[in-house]
Amino acid sequence: MSASDSSRREPCFLTAAEAAAAIRAGTLTSEALVRSCLERIEARDPIVKAWLHVDKAKAIATARERDKYPDHGPLHGLPFGVKDMIDTADMPTTYNSNCYWQHRPAKDAACVAVARHSGAVILGKTDTVEFAAAGRKAATRNPYHLGHTPGGSSSGSGAAVGDWQVPLAFGTQTGGSHIRPASFNGIYGLKPTWGVVSREGAKQYSTMLDTIGWYGRSVADLSLVAKAFHIADIACDETIDVSGLKVALCKTPYWDTAEAGTHKAFQLAAERLVKAGARVTDLTLSTSFGGMYDAQTTVMFGEGRASFLSEHLVHGPALHQDFTDRALNSRNITPAELVAAYDLAAACRKEFDSLFGDIDVVLTPASTGEAPEGLHTTGDHVFNAMWTLLHVPCLAIPCTFGAKGLPVGIQIVGPRFSDAKLMRIAAAIAPLIDVESKHVTERAA
Amino acid sequence: MSASDSSRREPCFLTAAEAAAAIRAGTLTSEALVRSCLERIEARDPIVKAWLHVDKAKAIATARERDKYPDHGPLHGLPFGVKDMIDTADMPTTYNSNCYWQHRPAKDAACVAVARHSGAVILGKTDTVEFAAAGRKAATRNPYHLGHTPGGSSSGSGAAVGDWQVPLAFGTQTGGSHIRPASFNGIYGLKPTWGVVSREGAKQYSTMLDTIGWYGRSVADLSLVAKAFHIADIACDETIDVSGLKVALCKTPYWDTAEAGTHKAFQLAAERLVKAGARVTDLTLSTSFGGMYDAQTTVMFGEGRASFLSEHLVHGPALHQDFTDRALNSRNITPAELVAAYDLAAACRKEFDSLFGDIDVVLTPASTGEAPEGLHTTGDHVFNAMWTLLHVPCLAIPCTFGAKGLPVGIQIVGPRFSDAKLMRIAAAIAPLIDVESKHVTERAA
Repeated sequence: MSASDSSRREPCFLTAAEAAAAIRAGTLTSEALVRSCLERIEARDPIVKAWLHVDKAKAIATARERDKYPDHGPLHGLPFGVKDMIDTADMPTTYNSNCYWQHRPAKDAACVAVARHSGAVILGKTDTVEFAAAGRKAATRNPYHLGHTPGGSSSGSGAAVGDWQVPLAFGTQTGGSHIRPASFNGIYGLKPTWGVVSREGAKQYSTMLDTIGWYGRSVADLSLVAKAFHIADIACDETIDVSGLKVALCKTPYWDTAEAGTHKAFQLAAERLVKAGARVTDLTLSTSFGGMYDAQTTVMFGEGRASFLSEHLVHGPALHQDFTDRALNSRNITPAELVAAYDLAAACRKEFDSLFGDIDVVLTPASTGEAPEGLHTTGDHVFNAMWTLLHVPCLAIPCTFGAKGLPVGIQIVGPRFSDAKLMRIAAAIAPLIDVESKHVTERAA
Repeated sequence: MSASDSSRREPCFLTAAEAAAAIRAGTLTSEALVRSCLERIEARDPIVKAWLHVDKAKAIATARERDKYPDHGPLHGLPFGVKDMIDTADMPTTYNSNCYWQHRPAKDAACVAVARHSGAVILGKTDTVEFAAAGRKAATRNPYHLGHTPGGSSSGSGAAVGDWQVPLAFGTQTGGSHIRPASFNGIYGLKPTWGVVSREGAKQYSTMLDTIGWYGRSVADLSLVAKAFHIADIACDETIDVSGLKVALCKTPYWDTAEAGTHKAFQLAAERLVKAGARVTDLTLSTSFGGMYDAQTTVMFGEGRASFLSEHLVHGPALHQDFTDRALNSRNITPAELVAAYDLAAACRKEFDSLFGDIDVVLTPASTGEAPEGLHTTGDHVFNAMWTLLHVPCLAIPCTFGAKGLPVGIQIVGPRFSDAKLMRIAAAIAPLIDVESKHVTERAA
């Protein structure tokens, strides 16, 4: 998109990278951008319901500060949404739980502190599945079709970014809570390598799985946030040549759960890459990986016991039964099962990383298909759980639309700690894969 | 010890299990116990300096509540100390950092909530190495010899329990911060299996390493706290017969760092077990384990980058240089080194667990020897780092005294998630190994 194109739009329709460039060039103020987002929220939130809390006055005041004192860092002046299972010192943090309706932490979560100190303007808190785990669903609707889920548990963050209400937002993934909503809302999402971003101050579910990620509307958006987090090698400018790029298509052991939308997206993405000269091959993972879905379930529920014990003791029957069940280990997960899951995951991590001599990147489904109908479900995480447990970086790219007109994305995956290279690959291939969604932005704007 | 013995003592000299039994029997009130501990603190803290904050009025009020409404759980009425890198909603939480002198969290850490809701009476916050990691040392002195360190980073918790100021306290271990102070202060300590106790609300250093543990003055004390945390199989009453018990003596690949005190403790513990009929053998770990010390260092510093980034951005030059160095990865730990450390640890975990067909328990040093002189050091974690990275439960048992009259303990170690069995083994062997420290208690009381 040319500068003249972007200057004709309401600022809320700009990507974060476009807005950052305009702010740097002096053609846009943070205040104008924030006001545009707040207007969009005001118009759309009554039906999309992405937000649990928006602090309009504070956001405008912060934006004015940013405009007064430039050069705060890579996120200077950019509006940011925070999933409401992440602590904020100046806003309520409810975890979407009845037990925390009045909760106001004394300290920002580490990731919020990093975003603020890199110049971001926190607009508010986005709705989430309770504790980003189970219990209450978010009230959020899919902005493409209000009768459908936006996915979960990062429901509000995914829908708010997909609906041009905010250009950037934090989500989290323990099973498939970050990448799946990216697919359902037609946006970009990065789930970084496990451990690269501090989870301090985010509600804990599973120590071995919980990962903080972020959404944007372009690869450049994701990279801006990655820069704020000093992600290794992020400054590297090596460009990727799509011609000859070794892309491995991985249907995963769970391909039989893929629906028409994902069949279409997977095939289109491959075709578009082949057309651009990429060397696209099929990757069949060894049989060990077949156990990874169950292993992720075992780790998640096994660790959920410790994570929800204090909630069970403190809140008693006021706590949703889902969490009491976890605290009391109602699935009877044994130590031997948990150890087996950890050891399988560790072996598969090593094996997966070793594939990256012969291939540059793995392309794999991001969801089973379009967002399911109704708000009683947030969709299936079957195409995400294994990658979360593998600790590898995953980057969601919008690809196409399904039969119901809802977006369907794909994700690319690299070995552990290849986040920076994965973003460079995404920057090269996204313009080839994501050729349909820009028309939607143009219509909306 | 007989009931008549214990009734002659000031309550602060009782073990937690003795006090719990007396409270249940109606021969002791929580208030009398708390007042006795507070008096001991008042008399001793000016020189031992174990506490950063004591809330006397609140502790007495809570004890009265406990006496009024019995049956709060396994820790009913028992005084408890909390390492000041763990959040408390009703007391300051400073992490012993200049940057947090005014900090008061809105919510108890998960482990504090579990202790309170199991009946514990939180007396206050104990001194710690800054962020339980580096930077400022605690001001705490070793109660056995004020010119010596009590160890760290759980300095205040270790010294307070060792000095009969409180019967129970939380510590944490990322390198050797929990088991080493147990050895230096002549007390019992459990570092449970990684993941068994939630770390939510404790300052984060390394996600793969950080583990919350607790101190007591008997194995029964440790088991009371374990009961509060619903640690798997804890209710199992299987008794262990020392005769025929297969004990593997593990000098570890780091034996050349052991000093005279540890040589003595290690040999005495083995002799005492052999005398009781245990089948004591030597265990030489495979060469893979030789890399575990360095791997622990790599993981700790590698993950410290993410953990301290927000502190660096928020506090700038007010932050201790040690943490700026970690945030900026001044050791230049590469992703490849971090991956290699993770993969080595995962392989060694599996290999270590597999040894427990032929053996029942591993006996190994808890520290290099007696506590070093001076407060500029907290001692060496060389005999702890590997076990922390292995995720296995470790239980420190007092054993003897070194040439300077300072205590030296040993630790026993089991496979992952064998915490309950490890405590049963400890209950059987501790009366044989820990035959010298009771005279100290009798003299002090």
